[in-house]
Amino acid sequence: MIHREFLRRATIRVLAAILLLVGSRTQAADPASSVTVLIAYHSVSGNTEKMAQGVAEGAKAVSGTKVIVKRVGDVATDDLLSSDAIIVGSPVYFGNMSGEVKTFFDNWLLKFAVFRDFKMRNKVGGAFATGASISNGKELTMLAILEAMLVNQMIIVGGGGAFGASATTGPDSPGIDEKELTAARELGKRVTEVAIMTKHGSPK
Amino acid sequence: MIHREFLRRATIRVLAAILLLVGSRTQAADPASSVTVLIAYHSVSGNTEKMAQGVAEGAKAVSGTKVIVKRVGDVATDDLLSSDAIIVGSPVYFGNMSGEVKTFFDNWLLKFAVFRDFKMRNKVGGAFATGASISNGKELTMLAILEAMLVNQMIIVGGGGAFGASATTGPDSPGIDEKELTAARELGKRVTEVAIMTKHGSPK
Amino acid sequence: MIHREFLRRATIRVLAAILLLVGSRTQAADPASSVTVLIAYHSVSGNTEKMAQGVAEGAKAVSGTKVIVKRVGDVATDDLLSSDAIIVGSPVYFGNMSGEVKTFFDNWLLKFAVFRDFKMRNKVGGAFATGASISNGKELTMLAILEAMLVNQMIIVGGGGAFGASATTGPDSPGIDEKELTAARELGKRVTEVAIMTKHGSPK
Amino acid sequence: MIHREFLRRATIRVLAAILLLVGSRTQAADPASSVTVLIAYHSVSGNTEKMAQGVAEGAKAVSGTKVIVKRVGDVATDDLLSSDAIIVGSPVYFGNMSGEVKTFFDNWLLKFAVFRDFKMRNKVGGAFATGASISNGKELTMLAILEAMLVNQMIIVGGGGAFGASATTGPDSPGIDEKELTAARELGKRVTEVAIMTKHGSPK
Repeated sequence: MIHREFLRRATIRVLAAILLLVGSRTQAADPASSVTVLIAYHSVSGNTEKMAQGVAEGAKAVSGTKVIVKRVGDVATDDLLSSDAIIVGSPVYFGNMSGEVKTFFDNWLLKFAVFRDFKMRNKVGGAFATGASISNGKELTMLAILEAMLVNQMIIVGGGGAFGASATTGPDSPGIDEKELTAARELGKRVTEVAIMTKHGSPK
Repeated sequence: MIHREFLRRATIRVLAAILLLVGSRTQAADPASSVTVLIAYHSVSGNTEKMAQGVAEGAKAVSGTKVIVKRVGDVATDDLLSSDAIIVGSPVYFGNMSGEVKTFFDNWLLKFAVFRDFKMRNKVGGAFATGASISNGKELTMLAILEAMLVNQMIIVGGGGAFGASATTGPDSPGIDEKELTAARELGKRVTEVAIMTKHGSPK
Repeated sequence: MIHREFLRRATIRVLAAILLLVGSRTQAADPASSVTVLIAYHSVSGNTEKMAQGVAEGAKAVSGTKVIVKRVGDVATDDLLSSDAIIVGSPVYFGNMSGEVKTFFDNWLLKFAVFRDFKMRNKVGGAFATGASISNGKELTMLAILEAMLVNQMIIVGGGGAFGASATTGPDSPGIDEKELTAARELGKRVTEVAIMTKHGSPK
Repeated sequence: MIHREFLRRATIRVLAAILLLVGSRTQAADPASSVTVLIAYHSVSGNTEKMAQGVAEGAKAVSGTKVIVKRVGDVATDDLLSSDAIIVGSPVYFGNMSGEVKTFFDNWLLKFAVFRDFKMRNKVGGAFATGASISNGKELTMLAILEAMLVNQMIIVGGGGAFGASATTGPDSPGIDEKELTAARELGKRVTEVAIMTKHGSPK
């Protein structure tokens, strides 16, 4: 019996090796190994939009990723359903996401109807935020986004920072600087890689 | 010099005693010792509205309190400015206040213009929330409300619960029961009493 | 060129099918497809310990899972490093995890040295909490645990509740009832399944 | 009757005016109008200690304030009971106060026994935090401190920032700079002023 078990395991290993060899050359192009990432944001001044572009660049840096970038008001039900990962960005309004972004999440129930039956379950989620001051709500905004995703049984990660990517945009540090853009790219890459892991398993 | 100081202090004490004696009979009716409390809420099913009524009862139980109860969409700038305390209530939508309540807070900047110059500074704030499940966002919703108030330099208290009054309204515990209504009343009373303290000092 | 590509893809599919066929019979027993789950908790009254046992049952219900249940004070560096998922439970002390559990997390830096180089990166994390009252800190405690995990670049999920499993243990609802134990089991099962997904990919 | 009411009110106003006139010159020296502020902190590198000193300076800037500055491990029961306001500071460890500070709060129940009967009720609370990165836990740490105070039915304010004073101390911004020290001072002043308001009423 040990002999037969040994044979079976050896067969698996050989086949796996062949499969890996043949398959490795197609990884980038093979749609089966790629993921779709939706980046949804609200931006008035353009700062959160710039961060969204950085997140998109990071996601695209992972070969084979399909990236959709939309304002929260333009997201359609199918954008949510067809994505493997969602990354949501908001300016900080009173220590929380803006009313626009909150209404976007409320629409997961009211308009998109993806909350019932947990249609977003197991999709990977991340967050980014821009705020005028250093410690006046960027953490809370990113966490509020992640918490809304947890309620939808999504899988959550940080990236570019413990809780996501953020930028200080007030008078002392106006606009999005290169370091903040790098954090945005890291977030996009990180969420995409985790989405690949949950879909296809971690690299062996 | 010590003698003069002694005399002056004695005068203060005598005058204070007379003042207290003459003034005490009017406490309830004297507008100077009362406060105005605004209760603003969003409600679809009627649950948060019932809690708002409980909060109002608790505030009115403090003699001389003027209470204004309004849906968040009906609040006017003057309601905010003329109040000594604000208590905001929301249903839990995705672990946070609803988009309607968030938009109400955003309007403190955009529409009511009370954020610039911190016009709400030193007013007392409290929160209440209703949610379907026990630990799926009622705490977070109350804290998100309190955090928005902290950004406005308000003074924050709990009441009826550590972070405010809350009610579980899902299938296992539908509607607002007497215990939850009691918590709502405690919140109203608590916030009103602290508003009196900050305005007139604590009872000697 | 299309022809060659077609052949290569066909080869992959045939090999994958053979691999699946040969491999499927060993899934439960094959250590390669199972995960190790560490459940670490602090308990004084025994309530959080009962929840830990429920979480363990849920994790074991997933075939092939190795489960380690330890008090936070007994966890060794290797327990952390050898686990694919960590589920941490705490009683609610002042709206947060207890000092014992907080010190356990601080030791990820100070004693276990797993924070530097992010040695816990990509492990899956979950949380559970027990508290006397309904809305006085169970959410905050679970989130504080998840946030500590995010700082370590772990992948976060809820289960048995939006933010994890929790139980109300005060005078109105003493001890752990069957419903709360069911939530604990769901959390154990959920975290284990996501750990399998991140390690081996989601079921095709 | 209107005549008698008019006379009584006139008497109150005249007496109040005299009282104000006589009393105003003693405000600074009169112990009745001053408050005691306890500043409790944990510090390893010295950064949080420097912030504590800034907070103390701000509190002392309010004439007549008695300020006690202690490490959390040195605080005695009477320090808590005799204070009108408590300001707690912590380094950020894993997105939360350090285990030392958490254990300090747990001792409000276990050792100091001030939680039962809510002996800290109506004392004013504030928070400060130091952390290596911009948005990796300073907000959460300040809020965790404020939340622990809310559980004790304290009255909460920010200062030097929406949720308290904070400093970024990592490689990009080592130590405590003048701007951060100014925020610390503002926090000390703010909490002290609110403690005077709750004790003696707001300035007329």
